[in-house]
Amino acid sequence: MAEQTLPATGREWHLVKRPAGWPVPEDFALVEAPVAEPGEGQIVVRNTFLSVDPYMRGRMNDVKSYAPPFALGAVMDGGAVGRVVASRAEGFAVGDAVLHAAGWREYATLDAARTVKVDDSLPLQSYLGVLGMTGLTAYAGLLDVGGFKEGDAVFVSGAAGAVGSMVGQIAKLRGASLVVGSAGSAEKVRKLTEEYGFDAAFNYKEGPVAEQLAKVAPDGVDVYFDNVGGDHLEAAIGALKLHGRAVLCGAIAQYNDTTPPVGPRNLALAIGKRLRLQGMLVSDHYGMQPQFVAEVGGWLREGKLVHEETVVDGFEHSVDAFLGMLKGANTGKMLVALGS
Amino acid sequence: MAEQTLPATGREWHLVKRPAGWPVPEDFALVEAPVAEPGEGQIVVRNTFLSVDPYMRGRMNDVKSYAPPFALGAVMDGGAVGRVVASRAEGFAVGDAVLHAAGWREYATLDAARTVKVDDSLPLQSYLGVLGMTGLTAYAGLLDVGGFKEGDAVFVSGAAGAVGSMVGQIAKLRGASLVVGSAGSAEKVRKLTEEYGFDAAFNYKEGPVAEQLAKVAPDGVDVYFDNVGGDHLEAAIGALKLHGRAVLCGAIAQYNDTTPPVGPRNLALAIGKRLRLQGMLVSDHYGMQPQFVAEVGGWLREGKLVHEETVVDGFEHSVDAFLGMLKGANTGKMLVALGS
Repeated sequence: MAEQTLPATGREWHLVKRPAGWPVPEDFALVEAPVAEPGEGQIVVRNTFLSVDPYMRGRMNDVKSYAPPFALGAVMDGGAVGRVVASRAEGFAVGDAVLHAAGWREYATLDAARTVKVDDSLPLQSYLGVLGMTGLTAYAGLLDVGGFKEGDAVFVSGAAGAVGSMVGQIAKLRGASLVVGSAGSAEKVRKLTEEYGFDAAFNYKEGPVAEQLAKVAPDGVDVYFDNVGGDHLEAAIGALKLHGRAVLCGAIAQYNDTTPPVGPRNLALAIGKRLRLQGMLVSDHYGMQPQFVAEVGGWLREGKLVHEETVVDGFEHSVDAFLGMLKGANTGKMLVALGS
Repeated sequence: MAEQTLPATGREWHLVKRPAGWPVPEDFALVEAPVAEPGEGQIVVRNTFLSVDPYMRGRMNDVKSYAPPFALGAVMDGGAVGRVVASRAEGFAVGDAVLHAAGWREYATLDAARTVKVDDSLPLQSYLGVLGMTGLTAYAGLLDVGGFKEGDAVFVSGAAGAVGSMVGQIAKLRGASLVVGSAGSAEKVRKLTEEYGFDAAFNYKEGPVAEQLAKVAPDGVDVYFDNVGGDHLEAAIGALKLHGRAVLCGAIAQYNDTTPPVGPRNLALAIGKRLRLQGMLVSDHYGMQPQFVAEVGGWLREGKLVHEETVVDGFEHSVDAFLGMLKGANTGKMLVALGS
């Protein structure tokens, strides 16, 4: 592929205001910015897909958290994939597919060392989802943090989401005795059992979580994978068996709360049942990456994994995609396609 | 020592009513019961000390918990030490000191195999406290469940109690960078720093736990040993550093609640900080017993451990001792002495 002429400018999404509660479109601005020529060791990438993720909501607040806050007036960074359109870096040629963290922009000029070349015999967007941080979060959370072992019963909240749907499938492929999940619509619940292979699922909007969980898992569960917090976590603490484990991965139910949420009132049950509740961030588990890519990449090639994507077309709709994801408009991984 | 004539009867404390909320004296009855002759392989023990413990409150309820509920109309069982007064068991002679779990009674006729002979060169009551389940709870909880390592900063609630005071001392002897504790009176707070060697302590009744904790441990803590639950746990979740651990050992603040307590509202912090909260029961940790007796018994002989006891004299006062312990009348291990 021949060297392409770089455009003078490309579009970027900037954060311009910090939201109180739910973010709104006015918190963001679409900005035309220069595309820098690559320096020595650098490449220019034209993005084809970018990722919108729940954790980004936390980064919009100006508080110290696990990821640094987004700067005001700067690009919303985050995972993206694209193709090299200019290179002054050894081993990176025009046309190569790369994964990087430079986020919501059409073009990115980057140190090649801060990007990862990926095998493009699998769809590029896989590296933002099933083979990316999403998949590794599910894999490391279930196996490493959750100590899942063959025969365990597993409950996943936010189960139709990108991480949740992977957790359930990995548990089944690894020999779970029971996999149950919760989601927020009848259609998602249907997908969980009919497409993702969950043994049972329920719509948490249709009744108390604890009651619905008791129906689908009357003997309790060994592992709870928490994407939600709130009522779900309390119900799971009640349902966990002796030596059960809760993987605290997300609390999407609370991200936009402006008042403190109610904590699980039954946490003292953790003493007698010797429960382990453990928070996780995928960044602690990069060491599992080779094992993860080998096992999950294998399942993917064999067609054993269903991994749905909700793709929003057009860079100009990135904010809509993000806000929609926060409200549950997606099934599976939410992506923005920039066109190729 | 010559064989003694067994008395025909001995006194026992029975549970006769299940309390709602705080137990009252009327929930118990002092009963005169026959002392059985020992069968083959059995011994008769005359108790010299018995133990009253917080976990017994939970066993008074008729609910499945980590220990089975006490039966109505039967002896309150639990830890006790005494001397053999009759033996038909090989290796057990009259006068030997033994530890057993047959509880609140003057005499117990027992399978010798269900008792443990103890070295009486240390005071017998040590085996109910510092060298018993209390000490092992502190040791295993701090080291095994809490993953304590040299240089860690530690916060202990209920720190003047039997378990709490051991946790703080073990942490200091093992090289903690900071040991802070909370207790419920000025006198207990004084003891923590002046006698048990805590670096700092506060009275949780004098102000919000989170504020007082922030003053004594402004840089946060690595391990929180929870004997209390409630506000203390919430404050600790806020104070725990990245990868901090909370050992959930007790929730004495809630044992007599008849309404559900408020859970820690800030539990979602566990995600970003990758906290681990883990419930424990000492029975999972008996494997550490040899290491525990070697290390803690060594400190005890060297005079490096302060282990206070509150001894109530007279078997007839067992219920008073138990109720007093639940309300914090003790410092250190609460015991009943039966006379020797």
